[in-house]
Amino acid sequence: MAEHKYDFGLIGLGVMGRNFILNVADKGFKAYGYDLDPDKVSALKEEGGDLERVNASEDLDTFLSSLQKPRKIMLLVPAGKIVDRVIEDLLPHIDEGDLIIDGGNSLFTDTDRRESYLRNKGIHFFGAGVSGGAKGARKGPSIMPGGSRDAYKEVKPIFEAVAAKYEGEPCVAYLGPKSAGNYVKMVHNGIEYGLMQLTSEIYDLLSKAGMMNNEEMHRIFDRWNKGRLQSFLVEITADILTREDDQGSGQLVDKILDKAKQKGTGKWTSQNAMDLGIPVPSIDIAVSMREISALKADRTKAEKLYGRPQPEVVGKKDLEKVAEEALYFSFIITYAQGLHQLAEASAEYGYDLDLGTIAKIWRAGCIIRAGLLADITVAYQKDPDLPNLLLDADFAKKIKGTLPSARTLVAFGATHGIPLPGLSNSLTYFDAYTSGRLPLNLIQAQRDYFGSHTYERTDKEGIFHTEWEE
Amino acid sequence: MAEHKYDFGLIGLGVMGRNFILNVADKGFKAYGYDLDPDKVSALKEEGGDLERVNASEDLDTFLSSLQKPRKIMLLVPAGKIVDRVIEDLLPHIDEGDLIIDGGNSLFTDTDRRESYLRNKGIHFFGAGVSGGAKGARKGPSIMPGGSRDAYKEVKPIFEAVAAKYEGEPCVAYLGPKSAGNYVKMVHNGIEYGLMQLTSEIYDLLSKAGMMNNEEMHRIFDRWNKGRLQSFLVEITADILTREDDQGSGQLVDKILDKAKQKGTGKWTSQNAMDLGIPVPSIDIAVSMREISALKADRTKAEKLYGRPQPEVVGKKDLEKVAEEALYFSFIITYAQGLHQLAEASAEYGYDLDLGTIAKIWRAGCIIRAGLLADITVAYQKDPDLPNLLLDADFAKKIKGTLPSARTLVAFGATHGIPLPGLSNSLTYFDAYTSGRLPLNLIQAQRDYFGSHTYERTDKEGIFHTEWEE
Repeated sequence: MAEHKYDFGLIGLGVMGRNFILNVADKGFKAYGYDLDPDKVSALKEEGGDLERVNASEDLDTFLSSLQKPRKIMLLVPAGKIVDRVIEDLLPHIDEGDLIIDGGNSLFTDTDRRESYLRNKGIHFFGAGVSGGAKGARKGPSIMPGGSRDAYKEVKPIFEAVAAKYEGEPCVAYLGPKSAGNYVKMVHNGIEYGLMQLTSEIYDLLSKAGMMNNEEMHRIFDRWNKGRLQSFLVEITADILTREDDQGSGQLVDKILDKAKQKGTGKWTSQNAMDLGIPVPSIDIAVSMREISALKADRTKAEKLYGRPQPEVVGKKDLEKVAEEALYFSFIITYAQGLHQLAEASAEYGYDLDLGTIAKIWRAGCIIRAGLLADITVAYQKDPDLPNLLLDADFAKKIKGTLPSARTLVAFGATHGIPLPGLSNSLTYFDAYTSGRLPLNLIQAQRDYFGSHTYERTDKEGIFHTEWEE
Repeated sequence: MAEHKYDFGLIGLGVMGRNFILNVADKGFKAYGYDLDPDKVSALKEEGGDLERVNASEDLDTFLSSLQKPRKIMLLVPAGKIVDRVIEDLLPHIDEGDLIIDGGNSLFTDTDRRESYLRNKGIHFFGAGVSGGAKGARKGPSIMPGGSRDAYKEVKPIFEAVAAKYEGEPCVAYLGPKSAGNYVKMVHNGIEYGLMQLTSEIYDLLSKAGMMNNEEMHRIFDRWNKGRLQSFLVEITADILTREDDQGSGQLVDKILDKAKQKGTGKWTSQNAMDLGIPVPSIDIAVSMREISALKADRTKAEKLYGRPQPEVVGKKDLEKVAEEALYFSFIITYAQGLHQLAEASAEYGYDLDLGTIAKIWRAGCIIRAGLLADITVAYQKDPDLPNLLLDADFAKKIKGTLPSARTLVAFGATHGIPLPGLSNSLTYFDAYTSGRLPLNLIQAQRDYFGSHTYERTDKEGIFHTEWEE
């Protein structure tokens, strides 16, 4: 029987798992990996170099008996039934007080179910979303853990060591009970969907209306990444645009098929926002656009049937300025929607989330990291109960300053047939959210007319119904 | 013991139930109602006049023993647990071969569960959405039944008699197995959300940009209702606009609070469309706008913080023409999205829906009835496998003719701060759906960059991955 001497166990030695465990070992913790695939096991051992620091096995007993108690076992396996299967495999062999940490993008209701199931058996279960991709896992991700506050102490030193640092502060924090961590990671991904859609629209616009080539667009995204739009997604967009195609001439981006896939977290964000009654149209439309992108054959037919308008070409310098402002505007609106959803989820599900802390741990390591998150952190530190970022005075200034460009571009896209649905939804969300009076009085009248659904009045309290048809 | 002589039983004698049963009796069928509330029972008996034609009881045994076998028992009770409770109450007293018909807006997965539960007991269960509101129930609704094809024969004569008629054809048809009827009704309501949102936007625009008063807008909607926009929602909008406020001066519509409620079917449509991977952004945004409308206090604060731009006033004649075209355009797009969702649901859930039949039974009786549905019927009769209405040549003509006005209005709204989110989403959906090439190649590049999610290429088959960071 092996000595109980490894500080941290990790199940699932794919790219993310291998990188995460190597990161743990780099920080001075002894780590042990487990995978059914012997090739992955030996790859890790080889890459780790020193078996005292990083070891691995394809034998579950060896793995479990190598871990210090209480065992800290992280799962980096695909979300879904596999998580349940791994939990069932572990259960007969682990002890009360052990921790199981699901690092995948599990649906938050699955996490709630698992947490309660395992709590009854004395096992602590954490949903701890990890963002940052393969490189983040290796060099410092953002980690979003939720579960038992007490048990979190056991993994806190490890997570704080491996997490990305923003000005010295680790991008990890205990977020709340039950599925709080998974939920926050889900909305993180929803925001990510929104920002990616917006970036792709601006890329399309620069290319079509600015007639810019990839090199010119690369320089623009690169400049933007040095300013207030500084963010991981803008940075990698700049990178992507100059990547040569290693299978042909020109840049790779032009050869990539325009059918975007999805793995579910963006969709879940939108679906759950609807359950909460919180509007997140900049995220909804990003989900829709991935769906439309998949209909490539129909789109090709439709283009033949309708043709595409020839866009007006505009001056590159002007376009760069207007596009920067509109992108900044719509990034803010997208974060605002996601954070609004988190505020409501916190109340609805009893997560007791601190939005300032969430913005803080998103400042580095994760896919939606951006300079903007430092300002968002400040806004929620000033007012932890801020209902919506749009109601913060400093953000109001940023929004007012960039709003005219958002108006210009949405109008331009509508006129010239360049689809800017993310930008449009960000703008119409803003215009609706800042309208004290909306025309939905007509909808209430219609509902009362055909369905006797009643309505309220502007001038007195009460519930009213009218017999509309005389 | 009463004789078994009534042809049709109805449980739930609220407005809808009472009206439906009176409609059944008018058509020469003997109908028996049941409700726990003695007041509702006596109200029905009184209104029915002749107890041989319409009778009712608050005693379940009396109700059930009054019905001809196989019993045809329709439920018009609120969706949710009440339906299950009524089923459990009925079960000990009914016989194999009896039919239970749920006429409410039940979630389709609930209907599937109930149908399979009851099938195992030899009872036929139908989900049969009824649209048309209280007046429709009395004078002729559109009915959307799904369940056992054989058992449908038992109610077919009754349903065909009570349903609305379009040029003599009844607006009811057997739609498919299991929850097909409920599903179709759900999407009907999703489309209804979209059309109502669009109508409210145009009302807002006429009022703000056209400076029109209610009387002027009434005349416009009334004119539109005589043309290609002819539809129930346009008709009642015209009505609503001239309704005097009986509690004060002026028109009632101005006194109705702009917080629109919802009962779930629109939300379910959007959420399920996402599960199917079918884009319905004109419906999604209608759900979002109802949510934003509910945030009245925040909107009022936000308006103070940001102000609202003074809209440019435009000529009334021009505006009427452009608005009519844009509304027609976006109505078409909204129907197209809903029907696309039905086509996919048909394949996914094995409903084997005939979209031409669905369009046919929507031509009269229901809330989304519109002149347009005659044309939609023709399109699906020409090609039952039409993937999307946008790909029909006749619709392409209608769309091309009205597209410029949609462009004009969306650009106008964006520029002048009049939120037209439904119109915008209809336009960006069109622009994306008719783009053979979308910029989502960049999104695939980003996903492969940070998550190794792989991509396809435009120039060769296969799945590719690039090590983006060197």
